Amino acid sequence: MSTGRPLLIVAGIGNASGTGAATARAFAKGGYRVALIARNTEHLNRLVEEISGAGGEAAAFPIPEYSYTATGDVFDKIISHAWPGGGSTELRVALWNVDVNVFGSFLNVTEKDIQSSLEVHVTAGFAFSRKVILAFKENELDSAGSRGTLLFTGATASIRGNVFTSAFAAGKHGIRALSQSLAKEFGKENIHVAHTIIDGSILTDLSLSRRGDAAEAWKANPDLRLGAESIAKSYLYLVQQDRSAWTWELDLRPAHEKWWSRGIATGAPLSAV
Amino acid sequence: MSTGRPLLIVAGIGNASGTGAATARAFAKGGYRVALIARNTEHLNRLVEEISGAGGEAAAFPIPEYSYTATGDVFDKIISHAWPGGGSTELRVALWNVDVNVFGSFLNVTEKDIQSSLEVHVTAGFAFSRKVILAFKENELDSAGSRGTLLFTGATASIRGNVFTSAFAAGKHGIRALSQSLAKEFGKENIHVAHTIIDGSILTDLSLSRRGDAAEAWKANPDLRLGAESIAKSYLYLVQQDRSAWTWELDLRPAHEKWWSRGIATGAPLSAV
Amino acid sequence: MSTGRPLLIVAGIGNASGTGAATARAFAKGGYRVALIARNTEHLNRLVEEISGAGGEAAAFPIPEYSYTATGDVFDKIISHAWPGGGSTELRVALWNVDVNVFGSFLNVTEKDIQSSLEVHVTAGFAFSRKVILAFKENELDSAGSRGTLLFTGATASIRGNVFTSAFAAGKHGIRALSQSLAKEFGKENIHVAHTIIDGSILTDLSLSRRGDAAEAWKANPDLRLGAESIAKSYLYLVQQDRSAWTWELDLRPAHEKWWSRGIATGAPLSAV
Amino acid sequence: MSTGRPLLIVAGIGNASGTGAATARAFAKGGYRVALIARNTEHLNRLVEEISGAGGEAAAFPIPEYSYTATGDVFDKIISHAWPGGGSTELRVALWNVDVNVFGSFLNVTEKDIQSSLEVHVTAGFAFSRKVILAFKENELDSAGSRGTLLFTGATASIRGNVFTSAFAAGKHGIRALSQSLAKEFGKENIHVAHTIIDGSILTDLSLSRRGDAAEAWKANPDLRLGAESIAKSYLYLVQQDRSAWTWELDLRPAHEKWWSRGIATGAPLSAV
Repeated sequence: MSTGRPLLIVAGIGNASGTGAATARAFAKGGYRVALIARNTEHLNRLVEEISGAGGEAAAFPIPEYSYTATGDVFDKIISHAWPGGGSTELRVALWNVDVNVFGSFLNVTEKDIQSSLEVHVTAGFAFSRKVILAFKENELDSAGSRGTLLFTGATASIRGNVFTSAFAAGKHGIRALSQSLAKEFGKENIHVAHTIIDGSILTDLSLSRRGDAAEAWKANPDLRLGAESIAKSYLYLVQQDRSAWTWELDLRPAHEKWWSRGIATGAPLSAV
Repeated sequence: MSTGRPLLIVAGIGNASGTGAATARAFAKGGYRVALIARNTEHLNRLVEEISGAGGEAAAFPIPEYSYTATGDVFDKIISHAWPGGGSTELRVALWNVDVNVFGSFLNVTEKDIQSSLEVHVTAGFAFSRKVILAFKENELDSAGSRGTLLFTGATASIRGNVFTSAFAAGKHGIRALSQSLAKEFGKENIHVAHTIIDGSILTDLSLSRRGDAAEAWKANPDLRLGAESIAKSYLYLVQQDRSAWTWELDLRPAHEKWWSRGIATGAPLSAV
Repeated sequence: MSTGRPLLIVAGIGNASGTGAATARAFAKGGYRVALIARNTEHLNRLVEEISGAGGEAAAFPIPEYSYTATGDVFDKIISHAWPGGGSTELRVALWNVDVNVFGSFLNVTEKDIQSSLEVHVTAGFAFSRKVILAFKENELDSAGSRGTLLFTGATASIRGNVFTSAFAAGKHGIRALSQSLAKEFGKENIHVAHTIIDGSILTDLSLSRRGDAAEAWKANPDLRLGAESIAKSYLYLVQQDRSAWTWELDLRPAHEKWWSRGIATGAPLSAV
Repeated sequence: MSTGRPLLIVAGIGNASGTGAATARAFAKGGYRVALIARNTEHLNRLVEEISGAGGEAAAFPIPEYSYTATGDVFDKIISHAWPGGGSTELRVALWNVDVNVFGSFLNVTEKDIQSSLEVHVTAGFAFSRKVILAFKENELDSAGSRGTLLFTGATASIRGNVFTSAFAAGKHGIRALSQSLAKEFGKENIHVAHTIIDGSILTDLSLSRRGDAAEAWKANPDLRLGAESIAKSYLYLVQQDRSAWTWELDLRPAHEKWWSRGIATGAPLSAV
């Protein structure tokens, strides 16, 4: 067994109010060093300060863009990072949590929209996964029989194309396919790969800002929106699963959600249910 | 190659305004003898007369109930039927098109509802399939390389459980599973098994009667409802597929349908698409 | 908030070496009273003694058969049971873990096989679910925002019909459909319904006995078979999820598993991948 | 109703021994003008000659690469093409049949491999679809109630990521997502979008060359491999469906196929079926 400090890498922090940041906080609290990747340096630094202030170890790794090369480069920086806390570090968990906002009617989707969705969600995700898998292969098995866990945050659009989501869904479907390929290929090497279907709205600064007058009521009611900390708990659980019972995919939605991903819950005529 | 007249058996004729009857008409027109199974003798006889009047060969086989035994019995009667037209007959196509109306809120589902859904959709479907498979195994390959085609009419509820459909969906899921098991086991013996997902409302006397004032407009607009003859055409197509490219499952819905089976098309908030 | 002791009901204990028993042990350790339903009284009593000996509270409820009526009756007995430990009891978690061994080539499936698979997996599951939902509706929300969690143990055959599984898959598909219907209908009342896909072999006395000379090596290698305790941990996790992020379905398989449920991992020719 | 000659565009002809060429031949025989897009001018010209020689109308449109821009450009050339036969032409059917050979173990997948899979399968598919949809919107409804049919050739990898297919599956999943988004958004405008899952090996020069000594036996046995003409027939059928019953997706496999896409048919241990 290794004696190094476990390391979590999170790619996709946004403004630090969503899933990526919540996962970083949860794992930092659990003793992980956390390396944060995002495009916005200010948001990154704020989250690093917050986690450090709470007694955790975190470091910021800004990325200019989610290209194949830049993603590989930032990964290498993380691996060679000298953590102030000293001692050795071992990558044990990596989360690909990157999203691009490319919604809209198909005829409004531009060349740049679809290229961006594919490059950021999928191509950069391939670069990230390659580095992560190669690092995991160097690890010994941990006490649960794993060399490491690679996590992907998916969405309703990972399993459904829909009106307004053509470009987004193409990217999310593509990266989900990768997650399944990796789970099948590297499970045999005791590398755990998992994918979550977030089938509802996550409470973030952005999603809140869209609600207008309804924002406070929506925020206050966990039956209606996903809490990022709750998603983070599912990641903690997935990492703790022992090798005899690994999950590749699970769905997550608020108690009162309308089940966009698997057929609407209400409103369908009796004749079409 | 056989020189017998090809026979189609349809189980589930309703009042002769839906899929079963349309399929019988289409295959009769295509030169098949058609054996019709249903609970209502009057409806059966009316359809037999109609098909005979149009120059086809049809015979009615009333069934007291869709139990395992009664289904096997009626099948045996069909096989030993002496067709007035004479000559030999060979079962080549069979359609399991039986449905039970057991919709409603879960807490209103009775013991009888769920038992009825399972017995009619699934148990009787096993009895029917067994007889059909055994008969097909005696056939020579036809010119398309098939010993026979066993068809199942499915619904949105074949792939989605939903509010109001717990009992119905349990039965429809169960018989879909059978269709897949059979396709895998008997494809290797050149028996073709296919299942359709009807993902919308079919225009029938019953569905029309539920529409009230909107009935005529709905009936007149094929963008909004499935025509039973159009479903029958899909069965003709499936039967004609040659052995190098067989379909197990296809979905069917009107052009303007809302896609109940695979996530609603409109109305979902941007944040949950 | 209630002050009663939480109760777990498990239906389907087998010989106490599998998922049902492991779940009972895990929840008993977590402070739940556990009510055990199975057909074999001896196995039930042995498990009750074991749990009691370890400081837990358990009670045995033999059932003569998994019919609709018998399932409802045994449930009522559990609810009116006077626990020696005294105080009030509140049903908070229920697990439907019943399986019928009805494997084999389709033409060997008897009327009794399919009826048994449907009655035990589905009809009795409807009776169980009805009682559970009605009991949960009386509960207050717990600290995670739930009135209770209803769990179903599924299998590869819950989502794939296959050669040798026609009768088994029909039942498992049917009960999975119920779990989805219930999740959609009762999520809105803060009742959590979840379904697991066990996509591999669980280490039990029975599965071990089938391995012959390979049994010890297989037992010793958690990369190859699911541990029942690991499945139980997934149930603990599902129960602990808060209402903002509930899972309906997750899959579980050993690290080196071949992914029966979602297309085989190896062996497919390049031309068909 | 229009009086123009109907036009089929096929993108992806390969060496004219597969699905694209067979579809072109079938529709040419059915009275369509066919515009063929591929990278290899020689293969294109040979197919044009063959179709012309058989009395059809075909024209070759070489494309330097399947980029967004080049795909749009070649489409514009097709639309402005002066057909020797004269008269007006109306785009009625378009087939996206492009594939990139990027198979292999994940760690051997290069940046170029994944970028190529995404650009060719998905980005160019977005460019193609955009032009097609815009052209279809100008059409009147035909006698079946359609303004046009947009077809996509999918594969097992469209719905399963797998060992050796990470890059291929990412592209095929992405374009399948597009096909579903388009079907949902433009069904309402009477534009039919359909996607096929080819779940087995198609008999082509390439697939044949890989079989070595087994090639002739495999070629001779339609139970084992898909015939491209049979796939073409499914496209003819999809185009003929009337608007009351449109299929989005169907699967196609040889009679004796092992069902890669939906769980293997044989070989699974009883305990994991």
